[in-house]
Amino acid sequence: MILEIAQIDVKPGSEAEFEAGITKAAEIFRAAAGCRSFAVRRSIEKPQRYRLLIEWDTLEAHTKDFTGSQAWKDYRAMVSPYFEAPPQVEHTELTLQAF
Amino acid sequence: MILEIAQIDVKPGSEAEFEAGITKAAEIFRAAAGCRSFAVRRSIEKPQRYRLLIEWDTLEAHTKDFTGSQAWKDYRAMVSPYFEAPPQVEHTELTLQAF
Repeated sequence: MILEIAQIDVKPGSEAEFEAGITKAAEIFRAAAGCRSFAVRRSIEKPQRYRLLIEWDTLEAHTKDFTGSQAWKDYRAMVSPYFEAPPQVEHTELTLQAF
Repeated sequence: MILEIAQIDVKPGSEAEFEAGITKAAEIFRAAAGCRSFAVRRSIEKPQRYRLLIEWDTLEAHTKDFTGSQAWKDYRAMVSPYFEAPPQVEHTELTLQAF
């Protein structure tokens, strides 16, 4: 299982619209093959910064099958108007789950 | 519940030592008041980059009670020799857990 961490800074004042958009967009991820969980978190120190934490069965389920698809285009249309800058996306593997 | 996300870039070649140190250090977090989970993840795109994902009951459990304590000093002694740069630490609140 891969955890995608996407850091998204939104335009000042667009937080509510972004949150509404990403809540709607979550249904696109729910329907995506290989997508296992979808959470949105907001930074306490930088309230215009959000992180999507998305679990995928494989790296390719995200980077090859989903990215660039029509579903991906639909998702981006819902939220990209609120982006202050392009999202910073990284994928991570579990090293340790201590407790 | 607060999720701390700490981004740590380690010195080239020190990955194994860092992983051994953070595995040992996890026991310090297990004993820390208000600390609820502790995971370490490694970036696929940047293999020298790790992220600690640590859940705390409150922001203050981390920033006031833990940071600067003797336990924190012990933790830092176990892993800071491998840091390439100071960790980037942020705290996040859950906006949405869609699935």
